[in-house]
Amino acid sequence: MKKQEHILIIGAGLCGSLLALRMAQRGYKISLMEKRPDLRKESVDSGRSINLAFSNRGMKGLRLAGLENKVAPLCIPMKGRLIHSENGGQFMSPYSGRDREHINSISREDLNIMLLDECDKMRGITMYFNQKCTDVAIETATASFQDYLTGEIKVYEADVIMGADGVGSSLRKSMLDDRKFLFSYGQDFLTHGYKELSFPPDKNGGYLTEKNALHIWPRGKDMMIALPNLDGSFTVTLFLSWEEGTYSFKTLDNKKAILDYFQKEFPDALPLMPNLIEEFNDNPTSPLGTIKCSPWHAYGKVLLLGDAAHGIVPFYGQGMNAAFEDIVVLDKAMNKFPGDWNAAFRAFQAERKEDTDAIADLAVDNFHEMKAHTASAIFQEKRKLEIAFEKEFPNEYFSKYALVTFREDLRYSEAMRRGRVQDKAILNLIYDKKITKGQSLRQQLDLVMAETRKMLHDDAVVRGMETE
Amino acid sequence: MKKQEHILIIGAGLCGSLLALRMAQRGYKISLMEKRPDLRKESVDSGRSINLAFSNRGMKGLRLAGLENKVAPLCIPMKGRLIHSENGGQFMSPYSGRDREHINSISREDLNIMLLDECDKMRGITMYFNQKCTDVAIETATASFQDYLTGEIKVYEADVIMGADGVGSSLRKSMLDDRKFLFSYGQDFLTHGYKELSFPPDKNGGYLTEKNALHIWPRGKDMMIALPNLDGSFTVTLFLSWEEGTYSFKTLDNKKAILDYFQKEFPDALPLMPNLIEEFNDNPTSPLGTIKCSPWHAYGKVLLLGDAAHGIVPFYGQGMNAAFEDIVVLDKAMNKFPGDWNAAFRAFQAERKEDTDAIADLAVDNFHEMKAHTASAIFQEKRKLEIAFEKEFPNEYFSKYALVTFREDLRYSEAMRRGRVQDKAILNLIYDKKITKGQSLRQQLDLVMAETRKMLHDDAVVRGMETE
Repeated sequence: MKKQEHILIIGAGLCGSLLALRMAQRGYKISLMEKRPDLRKESVDSGRSINLAFSNRGMKGLRLAGLENKVAPLCIPMKGRLIHSENGGQFMSPYSGRDREHINSISREDLNIMLLDECDKMRGITMYFNQKCTDVAIETATASFQDYLTGEIKVYEADVIMGADGVGSSLRKSMLDDRKFLFSYGQDFLTHGYKELSFPPDKNGGYLTEKNALHIWPRGKDMMIALPNLDGSFTVTLFLSWEEGTYSFKTLDNKKAILDYFQKEFPDALPLMPNLIEEFNDNPTSPLGTIKCSPWHAYGKVLLLGDAAHGIVPFYGQGMNAAFEDIVVLDKAMNKFPGDWNAAFRAFQAERKEDTDAIADLAVDNFHEMKAHTASAIFQEKRKLEIAFEKEFPNEYFSKYALVTFREDLRYSEAMRRGRVQDKAILNLIYDKKITKGQSLRQQLDLVMAETRKMLHDDAVVRGMETE
Repeated sequence: MKKQEHILIIGAGLCGSLLALRMAQRGYKISLMEKRPDLRKESVDSGRSINLAFSNRGMKGLRLAGLENKVAPLCIPMKGRLIHSENGGQFMSPYSGRDREHINSISREDLNIMLLDECDKMRGITMYFNQKCTDVAIETATASFQDYLTGEIKVYEADVIMGADGVGSSLRKSMLDDRKFLFSYGQDFLTHGYKELSFPPDKNGGYLTEKNALHIWPRGKDMMIALPNLDGSFTVTLFLSWEEGTYSFKTLDNKKAILDYFQKEFPDALPLMPNLIEEFNDNPTSPLGTIKCSPWHAYGKVLLLGDAAHGIVPFYGQGMNAAFEDIVVLDKAMNKFPGDWNAAFRAFQAERKEDTDAIADLAVDNFHEMKAHTASAIFQEKRKLEIAFEKEFPNEYFSKYALVTFREDLRYSEAMRRGRVQDKAILNLIYDKKITKGQSLRQQLDLVMAETRKMLHDDAVVRGMETE
């Protein structure tokens, strides 16, 4: 019998802990190394967002590890965007015309605890906390860790090292510093940063505003959002320019400026924020960046997954979902090349890189869509039409949002290609008044489908798919 | 009278020396620091390509500094691509249907020497050679240099530091390492590397093959090109995958493999390469990368220009041209904000970044076009049609190549937007057989123009330019 191989996983966050579970299920011996304390014992201020959007692609990953039922109690369904207009009005823009389709607000901590508990129950996983990775020797799959409590540095050898250590990945840093191979790398920051605030629960632990929605206050250049938590509170996030424009994190440097800004831009939210000034001053302002890199692997010895391989901005709610889907794609590649890490890693990246590049770009697009377009007339008309299509022809029409979020059978890259062209077709048909009130919904859908097909054909000819 | 301000320029290559000249003409005191020896005294093996394509945008920069006439004697006009087919045949694909439009092969060294000689003649410029920049303190515009010959480290203070120190820019590195501001940065390598080879002159100092062309051997996955030099030789560059596919720099590791490959892929070139094996083994294999970053400036104290701000792959022949055009754009921004470095730097980047991002992307596109599409039937049909349009309607039609290369009045970003859509329109009209032999050239042009307008409109609606 072949000796049991040892995988060292850096990072016991959402991606690392699910990865550890799945790799242990496949029969490997796992060392799961975490920089922070065990969050089941100590409250950990991770500096990362408190709640996340969980949806179909993430579920695919949990299903692979047999955890589909464990996650349900943690989820708060969000049926759509609840748009808060500048004039104080509000309206619901559903995520889908199909009843079963929604996304979920989930607590990062609750989900991570569930995954760590499952790791505890699983044979073959050893967890180490307070272990900061200081260096990875890539060719030999050897990593050094410093214990935060004792200061001691220890070197671990493994057959394979997997980096699930997030946007600040130490494995990725070691790969970037390695002069023996060309490493493409990009860090791209938005002009905006973000700050977390909150709406507390009401006196009875209920919700101060609609629970089953993702609230958005789109203000053109900036925006605020709110997601519900199980305890009745909402996590509120303000996305604002660092230093450009009338309002920025630079200009909001005193109580009066902050209150004036919220009074002017978010008058309906302000009464729900009794701790606004305190939170604004105490909570950090964090950057929003996209990380892309390549290769994700080297020598069949190391592999990056999740945010470590592809850090994306949060505006499509796909960061964790993409990380969990990575594990599904990796699992398939390992099935295809059993016992050959190098081939499996190559196949994984060959299939997956195009897709994570796509969701990274879609997430940046969605930043602009959320802060500006959700408030525009033509965009609202488009969304109304799309929801009507999805209700009436649920098996025929899928909006870009639905393709990306709910069609977990489709690759992100394909969802992007089709979704972008479909958006272009529908926006132009509305703008050019080719879609009119006199038409039946069927006729309107046929127009959109035909224009989408024409545009996809035009693009395909250029890509040379049909020419050579 | 205001004190004369002192600009320290890092790098006395093509960009740095022209920048020094222009800034001295504007009345500043200039220290021009160069890592290498004075190439007028010592032959410098720069590791960079020997000859370059010089065209309209580069000329704009030289004209600004009054050097338009100095460059003419250094130029060898190239009228088009001379395509060498796999079957041994060859044909000329002109760069333009307008007689006056061509690009030029120019020696990097000759051009640099001309510029350094002009710097010598110019009051206010002091040049320092063998000075390696070891660190820049950004907030105080202070830079440390180590003298290669003496080992001595000296610190220079300036009012402003400009980094024209190329893709490996030490100023950019200092900005990336500075934790006080967010620095977006990307290095993106192609899967291919390159190696320089040569055709020697014939016995009489003449040319072994057509002088006034850029020779291309497109082979789908890889390619070779050749540019003429004044001495009758050609600089030949092989672009080949590092390690993927049947042929790669990895597999070409012995004399037989190299000869077999050239015999199979470039049989008409092989007889012109008596020193092939020697050159192949002695010359380095170099990477091809795109560098993007932002911001290019900080605190009104430092500024990146040229390759240091935007390293691009060589396939559009626009690296030096873009760097020289940078100087024109900076010059205009300084006119707009006299005495305010910070405002001038911001205005410079605000106008220019979109354009250098565009030429970076166009250059990568052109890699694929050159190695694969130039050999394809539909592409050749398109080029034939475009050249006919340009001949017959010289003021109405400009191909993407012409928009980028010859229309120095247009921004790169606009040339890209228009050029890409026009390519898409024309390729689709050919593919869908809407352009037919029975039509007059006028009718064909009208079809292309109408389809281009329609597609530009569709794109504009999505960008929201016409919707909000």
